[in-house]
Amino acid sequence: MAGALAKINQTIHVASGKHHSRPSLPYRRPMMVCMSQNKSYWASIHEDIESHLKQAIPLREPVEVFEPMRHFVFTSPPSTAPALCIAACELVGGHRDQAVAAASALHVMHASAYTHEQLPLSDRPRVVPTSRPIAHHVYNPNVELLLPDGIVPFGLELLARSDDPAQNNSGRILRVMIEMTRALGSQEMVDGQYKEILCSQLDDKDPRYAELINYTCEKKEGGLHACGAASGAILGGGSEEEIEKLRRYGFYVGMIQGISQRLIPNQSKKIEEFKNLALEELKGFNNEANIEAISSFINVNYSHV
Amino acid sequence: MAGALAKINQTIHVASGKHHSRPSLPYRRPMMVCMSQNKSYWASIHEDIESHLKQAIPLREPVEVFEPMRHFVFTSPPSTAPALCIAACELVGGHRDQAVAAASALHVMHASAYTHEQLPLSDRPRVVPTSRPIAHHVYNPNVELLLPDGIVPFGLELLARSDDPAQNNSGRILRVMIEMTRALGSQEMVDGQYKEILCSQLDDKDPRYAELINYTCEKKEGGLHACGAASGAILGGGSEEEIEKLRRYGFYVGMIQGISQRLIPNQSKKIEEFKNLALEELKGFNNEANIEAISSFINVNYSHV
Repeated sequence: MAGALAKINQTIHVASGKHHSRPSLPYRRPMMVCMSQNKSYWASIHEDIESHLKQAIPLREPVEVFEPMRHFVFTSPPSTAPALCIAACELVGGHRDQAVAAASALHVMHASAYTHEQLPLSDRPRVVPTSRPIAHHVYNPNVELLLPDGIVPFGLELLARSDDPAQNNSGRILRVMIEMTRALGSQEMVDGQYKEILCSQLDDKDPRYAELINYTCEKKEGGLHACGAASGAILGGGSEEEIEKLRRYGFYVGMIQGISQRLIPNQSKKIEEFKNLALEELKGFNNEANIEAISSFINVNYSHV
Repeated sequence: MAGALAKINQTIHVASGKHHSRPSLPYRRPMMVCMSQNKSYWASIHEDIESHLKQAIPLREPVEVFEPMRHFVFTSPPSTAPALCIAACELVGGHRDQAVAAASALHVMHASAYTHEQLPLSDRPRVVPTSRPIAHHVYNPNVELLLPDGIVPFGLELLARSDDPAQNNSGRILRVMIEMTRALGSQEMVDGQYKEILCSQLDDKDPRYAELINYTCEKKEGGLHACGAASGAILGGGSEEEIEKLRRYGFYVGMIQGISQRLIPNQSKKIEEFKNLALEELKGFNNEANIEAISSFINVNYSHV
């Protein structure tokens, strides 16, 4: 395994939308990141999630509701958490099909949180997190408020619908439901979003800034990726030890993502520390090819296209 | 059964908050309606839902997040859908404990939808549905935007946590999860909210007004109550026929609620029609006391206190 880990310890850049367009897609921005290494592996994960979502969100009545819903889901900037969910499932010996609904649900709920962050409220003409690309507002604020309210339940419906009596997987799905609702809810994502807004009102020399921005990364990207990896491991039938190792691995990957996207003192040093912590967690797994695939998450760089 | 139904066909008014305060509660407004008839039955349902929620939402860290979360959950105006969920569970022979988590989840998600309806957006200084009481804004818009985003997943977490291997009820819970996510999502609640906003921009003489307002009632109150009743029947172990009868009963109850709260032509006549349709659906059940209890839903009048 050491060989596999050594190979991937290099920076990999995200492919931009124009090198990645597929004629069948209505939107140009890639839904998730695509990496130069393990490209076919990632491309196949993304295709599976995308095709699951395209099938799940047809353009149907009421069109005024479904058209913007598709728009928000397919144009939100990428998060790697959904792909990590599938990679974790495969690492513990599960099949991709067992995690694709959960991964789609994670993307959908991430898209919802992103859309609300961009909403123009009457008390703030333009306060959005600096870590995120600014969205082009295609719909009016009413629609941008209501649609994500519809998208979150839809994401959880996707997950609930993956219940399959033949697989006897209801218990696992309910466990993942709890993972996801916690990660997206008041104690994780929402807490992080709230702290990020507080943070955006501080000068970056303010002594509270460093602490708040770290907290924000832990709650937003850290929590979402920890949830993604743990959920994949649960659905793939991992042991409790494997689930917890992958939860920590996901958390470190999320911290790397969060730190990379923000102005943070000692950024490179912190990223290196989290990379080392992350790789520690992969020791003990013994599927070389899947270890190499999941390890490459620590080297994803976003370039918002 | 005819006797039981005849007895309850009269208007019952909702008790106001000041006659209903409990010293242990931090907020004065009753979480749900309380009726003069069957008072002890309803009072006991409300107490069960309320105590479930109070236990589930302790005032904990992060206080900036949990304090407003409790506020929104406990001060949102009542919906009868959660109590209907429990009444339906008991009507099909189930025990209240089997439905209390689902009823709490319904209340929580209703509170979230209500809070977002009240949000001041930059494109509309004050456009909120006329069917709802105006909320007193205690928190700033950022908090009123983010908190409901945390409340919806929390509601679904409550439901998922009611999974009990001893009862082997995972399959039923996942089915109710799908019921609820649909009722709250893009095709039901959100669609209704969107149409209600369109409606609020029309003159009530406009020929499209009557159709749109009817559609709004179907999607908002109709859908939520249909979901509540069907969910209770599923959790209580009702047959497919019982579930569908109670779904329709819930829909008619919701229509009565929706119509009562809005300016609608021929209001009384329509309410009478829906009462008759509703009572038809209760034929065939044979638990006199529970039929009397659930029938009284058709006579609830709101007085927003």
